[in-house]
Amino acid sequence: MTTIGTRLGELVDRFGGQLIGDPNTQIIGIAPLSEADEIHATFLSNVKLRAQAETTRAAVLILTEADHLHIGSGFSGARILTPQPYVYFARAAQFFASLKAIPAPFGIHPSAWVSPQAVIAASASIGPHVAIDAETIIGENVVIGAGSVIGRGVSIADGTQLHANVTVYDYCVIGQRCIIHSGAVIGADGFGFANESGHWIKIPQTGRVLIGDDVDIGANTSIDRGALADTIIEDGVKLDNQIQIGHNCHIGAHTAMAGCVGVAGSAKIGKYCTFGGAAMVLGHLTIVDHVHISSGSMVSRSILEAGQYTGFYPLAKNADWEKTAAIVRNLGRMREKIRSLEKTIKSLTEK
Amino acid sequence: MTTIGTRLGELVDRFGGQLIGDPNTQIIGIAPLSEADEIHATFLSNVKLRAQAETTRAAVLILTEADHLHIGSGFSGARILTPQPYVYFARAAQFFASLKAIPAPFGIHPSAWVSPQAVIAASASIGPHVAIDAETIIGENVVIGAGSVIGRGVSIADGTQLHANVTVYDYCVIGQRCIIHSGAVIGADGFGFANESGHWIKIPQTGRVLIGDDVDIGANTSIDRGALADTIIEDGVKLDNQIQIGHNCHIGAHTAMAGCVGVAGSAKIGKYCTFGGAAMVLGHLTIVDHVHISSGSMVSRSILEAGQYTGFYPLAKNADWEKTAAIVRNLGRMREKIRSLEKTIKSLTEK
Amino acid sequence: MTTIGTRLGELVDRFGGQLIGDPNTQIIGIAPLSEADEIHATFLSNVKLRAQAETTRAAVLILTEADHLHIGSGFSGARILTPQPYVYFARAAQFFASLKAIPAPFGIHPSAWVSPQAVIAASASIGPHVAIDAETIIGENVVIGAGSVIGRGVSIADGTQLHANVTVYDYCVIGQRCIIHSGAVIGADGFGFANESGHWIKIPQTGRVLIGDDVDIGANTSIDRGALADTIIEDGVKLDNQIQIGHNCHIGAHTAMAGCVGVAGSAKIGKYCTFGGAAMVLGHLTIVDHVHISSGSMVSRSILEAGQYTGFYPLAKNADWEKTAAIVRNLGRMREKIRSLEKTIKSLTEK
Repeated sequence: MTTIGTRLGELVDRFGGQLIGDPNTQIIGIAPLSEADEIHATFLSNVKLRAQAETTRAAVLILTEADHLHIGSGFSGARILTPQPYVYFARAAQFFASLKAIPAPFGIHPSAWVSPQAVIAASASIGPHVAIDAETIIGENVVIGAGSVIGRGVSIADGTQLHANVTVYDYCVIGQRCIIHSGAVIGADGFGFANESGHWIKIPQTGRVLIGDDVDIGANTSIDRGALADTIIEDGVKLDNQIQIGHNCHIGAHTAMAGCVGVAGSAKIGKYCTFGGAAMVLGHLTIVDHVHISSGSMVSRSILEAGQYTGFYPLAKNADWEKTAAIVRNLGRMREKIRSLEKTIKSLTEK
Repeated sequence: MTTIGTRLGELVDRFGGQLIGDPNTQIIGIAPLSEADEIHATFLSNVKLRAQAETTRAAVLILTEADHLHIGSGFSGARILTPQPYVYFARAAQFFASLKAIPAPFGIHPSAWVSPQAVIAASASIGPHVAIDAETIIGENVVIGAGSVIGRGVSIADGTQLHANVTVYDYCVIGQRCIIHSGAVIGADGFGFANESGHWIKIPQTGRVLIGDDVDIGANTSIDRGALADTIIEDGVKLDNQIQIGHNCHIGAHTAMAGCVGVAGSAKIGKYCTFGGAAMVLGHLTIVDHVHISSGSMVSRSILEAGQYTGFYPLAKNADWEKTAAIVRNLGRMREKIRSLEKTIKSLTEK
Repeated sequence: MTTIGTRLGELVDRFGGQLIGDPNTQIIGIAPLSEADEIHATFLSNVKLRAQAETTRAAVLILTEADHLHIGSGFSGARILTPQPYVYFARAAQFFASLKAIPAPFGIHPSAWVSPQAVIAASASIGPHVAIDAETIIGENVVIGAGSVIGRGVSIADGTQLHANVTVYDYCVIGQRCIIHSGAVIGADGFGFANESGHWIKIPQTGRVLIGDDVDIGANTSIDRGALADTIIEDGVKLDNQIQIGHNCHIGAHTAMAGCVGVAGSAKIGKYCTFGGAAMVLGHLTIVDHVHISSGSMVSRSILEAGQYTGFYPLAKNADWEKTAAIVRNLGRMREKIRSLEKTIKSLTEK
């Protein structure tokens, strides 16, 4: 019987790095510095943890050359030197996870309903109680979790995984190797109405959602279809849970948004941006590449210069907040007082 | 073979307006000014786009009389004059969408489970894997999307559409011509507990959710049932995605809320209000008719006067925010300094 | 035919309190002071409502001894004296709700799919279109609502109820007597990536979600699984709707969070805390026991002292907000002016 795991030599063959130690040492997975055992790899990606790294019991320590030299003989196990230990950890952890993964069964579960006009690749896995409507194309190795509903004319490309209870509306397009979590809703109607004497007249939302390759979408996140044109999520975008993306938004490649972010309609967001949790973006704004928005901040105007931006009220003990909030409400009066003081002093000094 | 579309004459017969041009001109849909072709209608609803309107290739331009006179001979196609081009666009777009719509099939999908004690109108469409419990009444032309679950004793009136994976709890009532998007949850328990020595004792939530006619509810929005009385959503209310409505709220007719809004329990909100994205309303407040809350604003007290209200911290470059936030935390000290200056100056001037 | 209800004597036998009145009086339920009739119990838990309590038509009034003495002969019905009328109300309301409840049918609905390697207690109720994967254990009296999906290796303990369309990912553990509402997603991947030259490399999320006993989870709330270790929700935690709990969070027993709260990854939150609606907590923070965060507040640093904390921008008429926000943006300049005034005055007074 073989344990599921690998040799250090194989790890370095797959992911590079310079191995210092016995390539035949066996490990079964990765663990944090403090929890790793002689059957684990571990990694050092934070200078503050150097002391902890010296005492880890791990079989192998993944670290930078600088940390390697610094730690010296403090750690007696094997080492893998790499410029980015955290990236190495991510790749190695993916590898170990794949060794333990139970593959989804090929084919269509007997309880699923698939339109005879849908085209399902032979290697796809369609779970229990899934519904797939006509003219929809499901690519190779796609996995559709139980209870998911895929509308008409949808396209889901190779290697994408939908977890359970995902909903994809008609005519949306999803790229390769995406991961979409439960409760996500792709392609619901954007929030578009004309107002006639106080009543709201619905504007049909006839655009689609176009999602690139390698996009991750979190649990209970919603991405609305476009009104006339499409909503576009470019390659490599990562969206956490409970996010709302309005109609006709365009999110540039490799931008990442943490949980509870909201983006109103027609916002155009650049590449390589990051949004902290619960950040909000108003509609029809432009945000250029490499902009970073702090958590809880409201973006109420376009941002045309890269950098980090913040806007939330600082937390305080409630009694202190009551005081400062009262002053904030009356800042106009405070400004008046200062102006009046300035005048008085000017007249005094001019005497 | 006939193209799907209509004559300008038919458009004016249906939706009014003064046609200047050939009523027999055929169009197949509506497109924005810049993308419209000689087979499209387009519309001008923003004075800033007058110049663009002069160069559109559309077959017909929907616009106000004022804009018509202003543009003059700059645009050579047909025109439809109407006081509200955006409303006209909404209605015409609905008409074109209806021409292209694929009607939901009548009847109950064989994979659905419907209690024998439920009453389903013959013209209703019940999708795959739907579950409908006893004593529930589904009206004419109602469409229930795949995977939706309708509890016991629910009533859904004529012409309402539930998209896929909607959940409606027991005894909720939904009016006519509503649209409810995927992931919406209507009638979950309100958040009500009594606290006994730190432990929370659940208060059963025995009220219902009552939803009027022509209400739209966005993806992954939740509306809780009342504790003893009911939660009420009046006619024409429009709720975007990811909204939370607490138990026993009452939302007045034709009020609209953008994505990520949260309303705590027992809030009473008037008619014709609007809420920007991520606005929050505390519980047990009253907000009168015609109140407009800006995005990202926290309503922490009742609002008894119509108007627009705002409260979010202005965004800044992070370094600038760090500075101003530190001052905000110490506004009390700043106020003291000003008071002390005032005193000193008073004593100086009194000399 | 017997009406569903109970005698006052039975109520006191079950829930204690001192009955003043006829133990054979029959009541059928509980109603608020103003709506109660001679077939209802009602309760007084707010001193401000004493006057209303004197005029209620209820058969019995649940109240404190102090209120009893104060009201005197103003109310002529029966009374139950108890130190905590609101807690008594909660318990009695639960009892009345249980009398009217329609029990979920035992057994597995024929439309459900249950892996032959799952273990389902005989008294459990598995609804229509449910999917339950291998190696999962469902305890006694567990109720799984229609359309819910339970992954592989999950454990759900006795008496827990999942409403319709809940999703539980592989290997999560849920305690006894929990209530989980529709759209909730337990155990989706945490948001963990390593960044390599701007691209995000996914870190497999191999931890679980461990949920204690008596935990309530609201509609459309998401709790992510841990990265390497587990996400932990202790006994008695109450989470409202639309909440996001990041990976590796640890939430202490009996803490309650209102709707739309977001907690970023690895936050460690104490026992007996409360979070108002839309409060946000950054990642890797520690919050001690008995901390109360006001609605709409952003917790951006650890809180090591019990108490109430607040941080949201005060609401104002939009025009007033425009003014104060402009000053907030320039608070640095205001501070400079004050410093300059101080200097001038110092030189004046030193003359």
